[in-house]
Amino acid sequence: ELGQFTEDLNKPKTEYIKSFQYESRLIPSTWVVIRIDGCHFHRFSEVHEFEKPNDAQALNLMNSCAVGILEEFKDIVFSYGVSDEYSFVLKKESQLYERHASNIVSSVVSIFSSMYTVKWKEFFPDKEMKHPPYFDGRAVCYPSSEILRDYLAWRQVDCHINNQYNTCFWMLVKSGKSKSDAQNDLKGTQAQDKNKLLDRLCNVTDYYNTLPPMFRQGSSVYWDKEEKKMVNNDEGSVGKTRKIVAVKYCNIIDPSFWEEHPEILNEKINCRRVHT
Amino acid sequence: ELGQFTEDLNKPKTEYIKSFQYESRLIPSTWVVIRIDGCHFHRFSEVHEFEKPNDAQALNLMNSCAVGILEEFKDIVFSYGVSDEYSFVLKKESQLYERHASNIVSSVVSIFSSMYTVKWKEFFPDKEMKHPPYFDGRAVCYPSSEILRDYLAWRQVDCHINNQYNTCFWMLVKSGKSKSDAQNDLKGTQAQDKNKLLDRLCNVTDYYNTLPPMFRQGSSVYWDKEEKKMVNNDEGSVGKTRKIVAVKYCNIIDPSFWEEHPEILNEKINCRRVHT
Amino acid sequence: ELGQFTEDLNKPKTEYIKSFQYESRLIPSTWVVIRIDGCHFHRFSEVHEFEKPNDAQALNLMNSCAVGILEEFKDIVFSYGVSDEYSFVLKKESQLYERHASNIVSSVVSIFSSMYTVKWKEFFPDKEMKHPPYFDGRAVCYPSSEILRDYLAWRQVDCHINNQYNTCFWMLVKSGKSKSDAQNDLKGTQAQDKNKLLDRLCNVTDYYNTLPPMFRQGSSVYWDKEEKKMVNNDEGSVGKTRKIVAVKYCNIIDPSFWEEHPEILNEKINCRRVHT
Amino acid sequence: ELGQFTEDLNKPKTEYIKSFQYESRLIPSTWVVIRIDGCHFHRFSEVHEFEKPNDAQALNLMNSCAVGILEEFKDIVFSYGVSDEYSFVLKKESQLYERHASNIVSSVVSIFSSMYTVKWKEFFPDKEMKHPPYFDGRAVCYPSSEILRDYLAWRQVDCHINNQYNTCFWMLVKSGKSKSDAQNDLKGTQAQDKNKLLDRLCNVTDYYNTLPPMFRQGSSVYWDKEEKKMVNNDEGSVGKTRKIVAVKYCNIIDPSFWEEHPEILNEKINCRRVHT
Repeated sequence: ELGQFTEDLNKPKTEYIKSFQYESRLIPSTWVVIRIDGCHFHRFSEVHEFEKPNDAQALNLMNSCAVGILEEFKDIVFSYGVSDEYSFVLKKESQLYERHASNIVSSVVSIFSSMYTVKWKEFFPDKEMKHPPYFDGRAVCYPSSEILRDYLAWRQVDCHINNQYNTCFWMLVKSGKSKSDAQNDLKGTQAQDKNKLLDRLCNVTDYYNTLPPMFRQGSSVYWDKEEKKMVNNDEGSVGKTRKIVAVKYCNIIDPSFWEEHPEILNEKINCRRVHT
Repeated sequence: ELGQFTEDLNKPKTEYIKSFQYESRLIPSTWVVIRIDGCHFHRFSEVHEFEKPNDAQALNLMNSCAVGILEEFKDIVFSYGVSDEYSFVLKKESQLYERHASNIVSSVVSIFSSMYTVKWKEFFPDKEMKHPPYFDGRAVCYPSSEILRDYLAWRQVDCHINNQYNTCFWMLVKSGKSKSDAQNDLKGTQAQDKNKLLDRLCNVTDYYNTLPPMFRQGSSVYWDKEEKKMVNNDEGSVGKTRKIVAVKYCNIIDPSFWEEHPEILNEKINCRRVHT
Repeated sequence: ELGQFTEDLNKPKTEYIKSFQYESRLIPSTWVVIRIDGCHFHRFSEVHEFEKPNDAQALNLMNSCAVGILEEFKDIVFSYGVSDEYSFVLKKESQLYERHASNIVSSVVSIFSSMYTVKWKEFFPDKEMKHPPYFDGRAVCYPSSEILRDYLAWRQVDCHINNQYNTCFWMLVKSGKSKSDAQNDLKGTQAQDKNKLLDRLCNVTDYYNTLPPMFRQGSSVYWDKEEKKMVNNDEGSVGKTRKIVAVKYCNIIDPSFWEEHPEILNEKINCRRVHT
Repeated sequence: ELGQFTEDLNKPKTEYIKSFQYESRLIPSTWVVIRIDGCHFHRFSEVHEFEKPNDAQALNLMNSCAVGILEEFKDIVFSYGVSDEYSFVLKKESQLYERHASNIVSSVVSIFSSMYTVKWKEFFPDKEMKHPPYFDGRAVCYPSSEILRDYLAWRQVDCHINNQYNTCFWMLVKSGKSKSDAQNDLKGTQAQDKNKLLDRLCNVTDYYNTLPPMFRQGSSVYWDKEEKKMVNNDEGSVGKTRKIVAVKYCNIIDPSFWEEHPEILNEKINCRRVHT
């Protein structure tokens, strides 16, 4: 019964309707960061009783999803996560979805969301998911690896600042203060003040640095250069190497990380080009 | 240990890093369609042994997610789904996420993906999900309700054309033909030829129109005008009305659908403006 | 000697270089306004000793350029100018430069600038142009004729407000006040206050409305419906009609202007559609 | 009489009308090329009887306008012109118009057009300008100086290829061939063939390279490092240096040009960074 319309909806009309679509392409030869952030995750973390200030299992779940993303999209060379946010770095030359921003952002967000839901049971075997989580996403282009590394440094500094604040805040609340008193105590304090406060409350010297690195430095996920593995066979044991997606909690602000992992941003190529 | 960098990453530097972000806003006072499409769903449907040419449960799952989307985002006034695609219509005046395209598209795609995974068990109690599904998405602006309705008509015509072809194709395959023979048989056939072919293969007059409307017309999901419900109480029974999200399989090409549901696109307002 | 490179710059490399170009297309079926504004025109008007608050010849020159633009770009159906700004309205269906924003804006601005320079002598036969004028431009899409008319109304209201203020300001200055005293006198005054001030300073009742309509209402430039012209020939005189680009100083906020000129926005079509 | 509407057009409505405007910003830290091209210049050059295949005065006029552009916009560090096109390179860090694409493109095109018209008489004292010329423009971002130089190389190769073809074509036409015969003669010929053809027609060995460098290599316009000038004063003569905008006809494909002018793209900084 739709047949008649079918003839009405001729080719020019279909072309007209399609003409409203547009594609915004990410500029070629730039590093693309797809950044996703949890939507209403304050509520989500309360409903699911996440531990404060950091819930290790919730972070491990995020990291596991990030590993899945790197395995699915081979052009993603690095990712960095903290709290309910994750940044995925597409290599400069990537032609993923012909660099169409909508396609790239939406499919990364989509598979991340699916995985989060699928893997939930694995990380929270005793907790039922009460409502589906969701994330928003965006793409940003960075024209050089220096600026890309500045972006990542910014996220790690944010991780540090927020974590230090939140650790103090919840420590004060657990010590019996009201939330608003805790806020007032922290107003205007510097990094050093907060460290001293923690040392005093916990009676531990340099308490902050006893916290797990995942809380303090966030999670870096990338294809690790090589994993040596000994294999037993008839003729004895031999070394074998392969690439796996690693989750590490390291300082990515310091140049040494990038010097030790030149293959991530493929910086050798740049060096070579310079020497010729 | 990140503290030192923290001081280096002063406000101007942070502003500089943020300056690479950009926001593309959808033009105000236009109908926005967020269209999502399954990624690699051909493979996904094979792995999960969906029935061919249409799997009713897979479609019901899609529809259930669409209902969830309308309940979450009150500015979505209509949606239309077929196969692994769904189009969501945001009302013209919507200020959802200040009309930032990335936020709107990514959060709709994200919650749809989460729901699909969460609800899977409800629709496929006996099938394990073997890998997480994902969708891509995009936003398109339509400046008038006429053009919006042309867009929706285009999707419904596509549904019809694809369904008629697929019904014939799988009927031929089930009758013993190879896939390539089936393709050859259908090459160049018109709508009428296909209907006759179906009638002949099934020995039923007008077989195509005996198929479920969901297969032939796709699914329309919207807040239904009013649902009258009789309530028994001590004093007798009274009528009560409320709004619910309905899933219907109707002809949305014909103007009569829109005339009978003027509240969906709020066309009364337009009419009133004209008469003064 | 460039020949060798020519072979190096093969097709893939050329495609790569071209891939950095992008085209931003204006959304179809929307009214496009190209708005141009003089750059550093405050300085330009001082250097060339334009009369204050309005220089009739400078405005006539702007209007003459607008007429030239309408004659060159047939898809421009209306334009409105005030001071050193001009808004050009492209008809909704226009396919000018395939609706590429850059091409449309730059060519309108370019020809306007050329014409301004070429026509200068015609309007200022005794003044030498001391440095080349220039304009910036932008395109904005409006999805309905109501919103387009609201845009034009906004510009005309701005014209009115600015002109009333400037008329008072320069009247005070000419009466012997310093510029900063004049500013102070006007601070916080309403429209009525300003009218009374003018009446008092000039000793004329309702002085403001004795000013030329071009100053008070700005200039509207459009293809006038019909121009009747009597032609003398051997057999007597006959009426003849043709279209010309007219410059009028009328109230475009009031609906009556648009009702009397339905062909400008082609609103008959919309009306017809409504009545069926 | 507009007063009443003024009150209707309150702040929210004005904000609504303004909300349709959008700004597309060019990505920070990238080289921006503003490329302008003559519109209908084939016709313009015929009407004004430009010499074929190259009119030296027309090119000198273009170059003079380019010099004016560099003097007006200090962030433009280099420009390259050929025929009726010109490419202007904005330095990577430029904040001109806050990197708003529309503003940058339109004001460069506008002032170029004004200057072309103003300077016409200087270059064509005996020719009247018969209709105003105009140009379209666009902006493109290049993320590294390597890609920017590839872009410029592409334009210079195009100059060479077109000039070689046009020189042959007009030589054949001047020798008495029809235009279509000349086209046929040239179909499928390689660079070498064309050079031999020219040598034969002109009876000159290596004729092509006797042509003025401006025709063969296009025009490069940039702030020249230093101009030494001897000044006579009482105590003898001393050297003095200053920067001027130079017009040169040089090979910009070869790296030597950029090595000799490192200050143009400020490449010393990059080099230094590499060596540490």
